[in-house]
Amino acid sequence: MIRKKKMSRQEALDLWTEAWHEYENVKAQGLKLDMSRGKPDGHQLSLCHGLMDCVKDETSCAEESGIDCRNYGGVDGLPEAKKLFADLLGLTPAEIVVGGNSSLVMMFDNVASNMTHGVRDGVPWQKQGQVKFLCPVPGYDRHFAICQYFHIEMIPIEMTPDGPDMDTVERLVSEDELVKGIWCVPKYANPDGTVYSAETVRRFAALKPKAPDFRIYWDNAYFIHHLNGHIAEIPNLLREAEKYGNENMVLMFCSFSKISYAGAAIACMAASASNIEYIKKRLVIQTVGPDKLNQLRHVRYFGNAENVIRHMDKHAAIIRPKFELVLSELEKLEGFAEWTHPDGGYFISVNVTDGTAKRVVQLCAEAGVKLTEAGATYPLGIDPRDRNIRVAPTFPPLDELKAAMGVFNVAVRLAAAEKALAD
Amino acid sequence: MIRKKKMSRQEALDLWTEAWHEYENVKAQGLKLDMSRGKPDGHQLSLCHGLMDCVKDETSCAEESGIDCRNYGGVDGLPEAKKLFADLLGLTPAEIVVGGNSSLVMMFDNVASNMTHGVRDGVPWQKQGQVKFLCPVPGYDRHFAICQYFHIEMIPIEMTPDGPDMDTVERLVSEDELVKGIWCVPKYANPDGTVYSAETVRRFAALKPKAPDFRIYWDNAYFIHHLNGHIAEIPNLLREAEKYGNENMVLMFCSFSKISYAGAAIACMAASASNIEYIKKRLVIQTVGPDKLNQLRHVRYFGNAENVIRHMDKHAAIIRPKFELVLSELEKLEGFAEWTHPDGGYFISVNVTDGTAKRVVQLCAEAGVKLTEAGATYPLGIDPRDRNIRVAPTFPPLDELKAAMGVFNVAVRLAAAEKALAD
Repeated sequence: MIRKKKMSRQEALDLWTEAWHEYENVKAQGLKLDMSRGKPDGHQLSLCHGLMDCVKDETSCAEESGIDCRNYGGVDGLPEAKKLFADLLGLTPAEIVVGGNSSLVMMFDNVASNMTHGVRDGVPWQKQGQVKFLCPVPGYDRHFAICQYFHIEMIPIEMTPDGPDMDTVERLVSEDELVKGIWCVPKYANPDGTVYSAETVRRFAALKPKAPDFRIYWDNAYFIHHLNGHIAEIPNLLREAEKYGNENMVLMFCSFSKISYAGAAIACMAASASNIEYIKKRLVIQTVGPDKLNQLRHVRYFGNAENVIRHMDKHAAIIRPKFELVLSELEKLEGFAEWTHPDGGYFISVNVTDGTAKRVVQLCAEAGVKLTEAGATYPLGIDPRDRNIRVAPTFPPLDELKAAMGVFNVAVRLAAAEKALAD
Repeated sequence: MIRKKKMSRQEALDLWTEAWHEYENVKAQGLKLDMSRGKPDGHQLSLCHGLMDCVKDETSCAEESGIDCRNYGGVDGLPEAKKLFADLLGLTPAEIVVGGNSSLVMMFDNVASNMTHGVRDGVPWQKQGQVKFLCPVPGYDRHFAICQYFHIEMIPIEMTPDGPDMDTVERLVSEDELVKGIWCVPKYANPDGTVYSAETVRRFAALKPKAPDFRIYWDNAYFIHHLNGHIAEIPNLLREAEKYGNENMVLMFCSFSKISYAGAAIACMAASASNIEYIKKRLVIQTVGPDKLNQLRHVRYFGNAENVIRHMDKHAAIIRPKFELVLSELEKLEGFAEWTHPDGGYFISVNVTDGTAKRVVQLCAEAGVKLTEAGATYPLGIDPRDRNIRVAPTFPPLDELKAAMGVFNVAVRLAAAEKALAD
């Protein structure tokens, strides 16, 4: 917890003096460290090195479905890859499109499509006035960047321990026909690690949007990405939504980017079979089909959903110590910061003294430690309290992480002292 | 040549009777053949089977550039892959973006981007009224489909043996600010096999468009895809355009789809370095980067541009006999059809008796031979003379191709007889 009591001027000065000396020392080390993005490290990437050559000649190319994965065709993906994703998500292959290496591309493209062509042949969003998205905060900067790019107004929604503030979501969605979407990361949310409660998922499924073309962008980026040996279970939103006749309101996304290779995996979009038929109408214009050979590699290497899930234990074993290290370093900031204790995902979310997050990131940068930009977790990069910093522990090795957290620690205290002296 | 003299009623009746009997016979064979798309056959795909496992473990992943191709990053592609495309196209790496497995996706995305965001931060096309593209005909159906999807008006431009009718192109481009683009396949054009002359390329480079945001979509799909042992040389449009200060008017596309794997290759967009900087602004919102591992496979397997070009001789050796077979079968249609003799590319373009192309395709379909839809080579699928049929010889084996051409031969004569009897 951040202490509520205001520092005396003398306390602030003592703190500043101490932190300043420490800062000068760490700065002199000339570090060059990066904790800015949620990237897997090399050891994680090497976990599935067999993936690279599990499809190695033409005889292994004609898959069960009889499709030559090397040739054109199949805009919605290899049937075997659709089945693998369907099994992982508890859905059917008819509810799946398997794309290229990036689910972000699929989200971007869906928003782009709705802007110019409308949802299911409806009125294009861009012709409906100033459309809006609800943005649970803190959240994922790349979601917000898509909205900003398409000039979609973003309405921040506070996160609670159970997920987004559903009272506000329900009210805005039911009142305003220009509210067209909401970004959700339902499990181990970026950056807070929040797992949506069953009741939150149910309330999403039961939304009564004023706009018939309102869509939930359910970015299940960390759906099996646990840290502590068990995978949080939340209800299947698409199945829940069916109970309310809302199955077309749901668009789900996930990928193998943090399962196999961050840059060379396979991504998936899931939706009602009826929605998928509409999406395919665009795909046949846009592409001659995704890279089915890479889809085949994933099918061949992992075999089935159960193996994929077991594989995630190996990732957890590599990154858990990094999270533990960061958390233990953060303990030293008791009184100057509060932070999350995630059970999965890729981030620890840290709140520092109000009005100092930008300064902390700047101080770290000047001492050679690159953090995610302060504000990145808010629409337009504007954190109203300038306090949230997303720490990404996965990429650096442990020793670098320790060094980086040392700098972070000093920077947080120094910035707090500066703030107290300025107030 | 198609004979000009009108058949007498008796001639037509005799032809009909003969062709009808033949047609009944071929129909009874119960064939199931497909000549509809320009797909490589399995032997072509097997030419580069070493591509699949030339990157097989983590030690081979950190490439010259020091990038771990398995991880996130590099929205414009692996530096080594950019260099390979640059060498093939006679350009510099700064003029290249390497994408996923499909250049069609890149063309679609560029048009989509210009519709909503304008060219280089200009006024979005969709806000400028009814924008138009020039469409050399016959042409590539997927280009036209992109225009149709975005409600872009298509103006057909006649093809000449030297490329599009440049008098008309120059006039329309200089007169009409709503003309925003033209689709070009400059070498071995789809479907006529036309190679644009040096003068045509020069006139493209020197265009004086009324619209500052006019763009040439230069789809170099068959840039090294010869059939007869030599690759046609045409001037480098981007370099030519520089001479007229027009370098930002040119967008080039090509891919390895018909070099390595049709469904699992790598694609490229080339443009002025300044244009590429604008394009990257969208890419950083849209994606965390292309599949660099597949780019690395291509770099590793082919090594350099010269090897890629040599590799194309092997493709030519496989598909040349198929083209020769189709051409020799077409000889039997002297008087009933005229056709191209391409030196490269994937198609033979056949003109049958005016008003019979749709009927020929229908007769073939009913006898189990699938052809490209008649009209597909024209905007909106409307061939004003209903005479052009695109024959795609590459995919079927020789014996099937011979059987299919037998059906085609009968269908062309039967349709001509029907037409003569109805006139």
